[in-house]
Amino acid sequence: MGLDTNRVEDNSGSGHAQPETTTVSIVVPPETMEPRELHGVCLPPKKTSFQKLRHKLSEIFFPDDPLHRFKNQTRFNKFLFALHYVFPIFQWAPTYNLTLFHSDVVAGLTIASLAIPQGISYAKLANLPPVIGLYSSFVPPLIYAVLGSSKHLAVGPVSIASLVMGTMLNDAVSYSLNPVLYLKLAFTATFFAGLFQASLGFLRLGFLIDFLSKATLVGFMAGAAVIVSMQQLKGLLGIVNFTTKMQIIPVLSSVIEQRDEWSWHAILIGFSFLACLLTTRQIGLRKPKLFLISAAAPLTSVILSTLLVALFKSQLHNIATIGQLKKGLNPSSLDMLYFDGEFLAVAVKTGAVTGLLSLTEGIAVGRTFAALKNYQVDGNKEMIAIGLMNMAGSCSSCYVTSGSFSRSAVNESAGGKTAMSNIVMALTVLVTLLFLMPLFRYTPDLILAAIIVTAVIGLIDYPSAFRLWKVDKLDFVACLSSFLGVLFVSVPVGLAIAVGVSLLKILLHVTRPNTYVLGNIPGTQIYQDLDRYQEAQRVPSFVIIGVEAPIYFANSNYLQERIMRWLREEEDWIAANNGTSLNYLIIDMTAVTAMDTSGLAMVNDLKKMLEKRSIQLVLTNPVGSVMEKLHKSKSLESFQPEGLYITVGEAVADISALSKAQF
Amino acid sequence: MGLDTNRVEDNSGSGHAQPETTTVSIVVPPETMEPRELHGVCLPPKKTSFQKLRHKLSEIFFPDDPLHRFKNQTRFNKFLFALHYVFPIFQWAPTYNLTLFHSDVVAGLTIASLAIPQGISYAKLANLPPVIGLYSSFVPPLIYAVLGSSKHLAVGPVSIASLVMGTMLNDAVSYSLNPVLYLKLAFTATFFAGLFQASLGFLRLGFLIDFLSKATLVGFMAGAAVIVSMQQLKGLLGIVNFTTKMQIIPVLSSVIEQRDEWSWHAILIGFSFLACLLTTRQIGLRKPKLFLISAAAPLTSVILSTLLVALFKSQLHNIATIGQLKKGLNPSSLDMLYFDGEFLAVAVKTGAVTGLLSLTEGIAVGRTFAALKNYQVDGNKEMIAIGLMNMAGSCSSCYVTSGSFSRSAVNESAGGKTAMSNIVMALTVLVTLLFLMPLFRYTPDLILAAIIVTAVIGLIDYPSAFRLWKVDKLDFVACLSSFLGVLFVSVPVGLAIAVGVSLLKILLHVTRPNTYVLGNIPGTQIYQDLDRYQEAQRVPSFVIIGVEAPIYFANSNYLQERIMRWLREEEDWIAANNGTSLNYLIIDMTAVTAMDTSGLAMVNDLKKMLEKRSIQLVLTNPVGSVMEKLHKSKSLESFQPEGLYITVGEAVADISALSKAQF
Repeated sequence: MGLDTNRVEDNSGSGHAQPETTTVSIVVPPETMEPRELHGVCLPPKKTSFQKLRHKLSEIFFPDDPLHRFKNQTRFNKFLFALHYVFPIFQWAPTYNLTLFHSDVVAGLTIASLAIPQGISYAKLANLPPVIGLYSSFVPPLIYAVLGSSKHLAVGPVSIASLVMGTMLNDAVSYSLNPVLYLKLAFTATFFAGLFQASLGFLRLGFLIDFLSKATLVGFMAGAAVIVSMQQLKGLLGIVNFTTKMQIIPVLSSVIEQRDEWSWHAILIGFSFLACLLTTRQIGLRKPKLFLISAAAPLTSVILSTLLVALFKSQLHNIATIGQLKKGLNPSSLDMLYFDGEFLAVAVKTGAVTGLLSLTEGIAVGRTFAALKNYQVDGNKEMIAIGLMNMAGSCSSCYVTSGSFSRSAVNESAGGKTAMSNIVMALTVLVTLLFLMPLFRYTPDLILAAIIVTAVIGLIDYPSAFRLWKVDKLDFVACLSSFLGVLFVSVPVGLAIAVGVSLLKILLHVTRPNTYVLGNIPGTQIYQDLDRYQEAQRVPSFVIIGVEAPIYFANSNYLQERIMRWLREEEDWIAANNGTSLNYLIIDMTAVTAMDTSGLAMVNDLKKMLEKRSIQLVLTNPVGSVMEKLHKSKSLESFQPEGLYITVGEAVADISALSKAQF
Repeated sequence: MGLDTNRVEDNSGSGHAQPETTTVSIVVPPETMEPRELHGVCLPPKKTSFQKLRHKLSEIFFPDDPLHRFKNQTRFNKFLFALHYVFPIFQWAPTYNLTLFHSDVVAGLTIASLAIPQGISYAKLANLPPVIGLYSSFVPPLIYAVLGSSKHLAVGPVSIASLVMGTMLNDAVSYSLNPVLYLKLAFTATFFAGLFQASLGFLRLGFLIDFLSKATLVGFMAGAAVIVSMQQLKGLLGIVNFTTKMQIIPVLSSVIEQRDEWSWHAILIGFSFLACLLTTRQIGLRKPKLFLISAAAPLTSVILSTLLVALFKSQLHNIATIGQLKKGLNPSSLDMLYFDGEFLAVAVKTGAVTGLLSLTEGIAVGRTFAALKNYQVDGNKEMIAIGLMNMAGSCSSCYVTSGSFSRSAVNESAGGKTAMSNIVMALTVLVTLLFLMPLFRYTPDLILAAIIVTAVIGLIDYPSAFRLWKVDKLDFVACLSSFLGVLFVSVPVGLAIAVGVSLLKILLHVTRPNTYVLGNIPGTQIYQDLDRYQEAQRVPSFVIIGVEAPIYFANSNYLQERIMRWLREEEDWIAANNGTSLNYLIIDMTAVTAMDTSGLAMVNDLKKMLEKRSIQLVLTNPVGSVMEKLHKSKSLESFQPEGLYITVGEAVADISALSKAQF
């Protein structure tokens, strides 16, 4: 297929006028064209500042055009869409049937068997009474089932947010010395977490969570998993007096210092169950069909270990157990919310951090399964759902909840089809709360520790970290710094470092952009990087430079120096090879995606500097916004008529023809 | 000139083999080519991670390749270049002659006549004894003359750095209550300013000052000018008890509250001289040939006002004057440097901020005149020179100095040709210090106030601010926020806000990049934005989307949503116009200048999502680094052979030909 054979539908201007003309139409060969048949560089369509601002704001806050379904609809349909939007349950409930229900019941029971032991364990991770973990597995899933748009998200307490809440609150208030205040702060933090999440969604600022990149999260999760696992040594080794610090160094030294407290009973039972749990987890991972084994393992372990302790309680009296739990539904915690006093700042800060982290997990899980099952999840809408669920939770004795990755995966494997599986799970938890609480009396703490270790070990994602190292060294640095920050300093610092590194990466890319010299690929109008394309050839008396970044204040000095250096190097090359002297410097502006006033000043300075050396500056293919700025700053005029072309090809061809005509 | 007429020198591969062949050579017309004559997309040349890191680091720290002159030189030449590099005075001194000297003497005397009154005034602005201003106009210019590479920079105290030093130190220590400690802190801050400046240059981190964009500086300077002028109301109105705060509100209220202290003598004399100074300034601006009038005005005013006060001292006894000044050269201030104690942090912070600000001014002035007179100034080298000059200054009773914009402009207008004009100026100051100090006894403070107001009023750059508003609204916001921040909060806060806004702008550009649908310009291989180019036409069964940004964690979710929305909108358009259904989505990657692991995941997800809708994803012209990442992550394989093309044109032509061949 040749160069001038175009397959262009002859749809004049605005519309596909002849939809049948899909055959290839041969365009008049260019030989028959007049010389200087040029294509001018257009300015973008004129817009007022207000229109531009509106466009910009709508791109920032409404990139998905959420109201597009409401266009050209009857009032009733609009109402229906609005109802579906606010309460997604109305979307699937009318067509819900028994087959779906059957799948959802199986899935719901399966995740309940995970959620109950995990709920109790994660509550302990947050230094909260175990029953709070069960409360948190009851109210929030029900609310999410009504408001949430993911079909696979399994809602409940999650490990990272539990850990972070435990650390941050314990830094301010000791849960052993002042349990009531600690509980108050936990509920208040949950309220603020929900408020923060719902506000992010409501203000359509959901994109802010994108700043926690996957690379950062891989490191963060791994660091948190290590810290959480280390904490579990308390339960697994049977240590009574354990450090309240979280960093790896004090924890390890505490483990070693308290060697005399190590209980061989606890170690034997704890590590045996841990080995079983890890084995079943491996089986579940290797043979996805056997996922039920790994899904049922935690509950089975709880039952077995409880039986063991109950039967041999005289011998195993030194093993810590959960103890008596209060039967009954979630009590109201409205009176526990704490809106003034010296610890309010701690609660707000804890709420913001745990809210952000649990939101990131929830949204990521929702998006993953939506992509897998090919449906859409509206991020901002989900944030409102998760936020409202946490605000409601904070009034009914629940702490921060979100969509858990491990339980959602089990939900999907077990055949969960709609949010009904969350309802089934919540009802199972309800039954537990009402009738089964006394059964946990002899459940040993060590089994909870083993369950936590098994759950969080999956957060350490070696393959991803290795892939980051292989594909993108800077992403790996972001990952490593968040890992080390969490491990050695603290969770919020680790997060801050990681976000900082990620932002630095963006800034570095803009501050030191890539530039290169282009050459022509013979027989084509294609101009490409001389270093990359061996067949590309220099065009005599031209230097063609590609710039791969917006020209901003942060790089305009660099780019000016760099372009002058390219020029110097080309001149050196020409001197060494007896080439034609340079008359034109073309900057290919295709990838210069924006320009500010410093960039404009740089281009004008460069033009003047080159003119003093009898070299003409030519710009090709500036993007719309750059054209607009060149126009507004009146710089454009100095480039017309022979300093501005639509492509490098046209520039070289036209300038060569003109200079030939002159001689 | 047609499309397939190329002017390519036949320089096979690496070299300009036939330098004479500059004639236009007609390439074989594409009709005679075989079908599917395609140009594969190349990977960049292979480099090890170490080579890449080296390249990256050299681009960050040595973009100007400072050692290029040392290549292939004799040892003697290398030594000579090194000497020239470290001491630029050796570059011009050997060829220095009487003509140049004559110019430099005139220029030196002219700037001295400005430097003496300004030195005294700016020292008062920094709450320092007036004589420190003269000391600072003696030692630093001499050192700069040896080390500096700018030919026009006039070195001495500058208004902004003086103001900032005065504010920041006075927040910690009152200069009236504890003058010795205040002076110690000033010298220590100067030392750290110099250390900071020299380190920036030595570590080749000079690019950091680029983050103070021009837009930011316009606002910052204007804000500082307003604050400085307001402070001068103390002198101009003859107020004795004035607020020590700097923000505009306390200053204005202090002016009004102390109404009973207003002195009508001071007001009359002060505003008369101010009017004269402003008038001569205007004359100098409007008629550059009369610059001498504005250059001589400050010294003339000082002499006249001193005479006036000396002659009528009985009537004008309530007008504050400079008083007795100590004759003699700069005393050593080594014993005044203060390296421990509670105020060290204040000194370091003040040093960093004033160092940064004075450096920014000095480098900007140096660059401006270098560009004007067509010579090069090495930013990092200049930073070392300015830094060493301040470190030396801090040991000889000088405070922070830099290149002053106004005096450098006068230097250039007066015909200054080399750094010799700084030496002449320093010698004039020396004469003043040794013999003329008693003459300043009756110089009134109000004339210093008038000189300061005249000098700083030029920093308010309305036209630039207006131009920012017209050309780039976001730059204007950065400008305005630094202006308001300085005016209402404080100088460091104003600076921080402005840098924050500038960085936010970069992040916003990356977070919400521009995307658009491309169409073909009939008769060409050119594909352009359909909105911008009216002649561009849709290609049936293709959607071609351009993305104008690197695909990063911060925008990968947005871009995925946005691309799916473009697809939906195109499908709606096709449905409304009975067009051909879509089979291919081409992403033109020319302006996607980088990709991280989140971006890779997005592209792979998008490919899967599109495959479920029977649409094939095609990438065109990915840049080198993106190709490399696609390759390393093994994503590339899934795009070959028919998902990757060098241009949109080849992609459309080849895919159309292939699908035609299939039917």
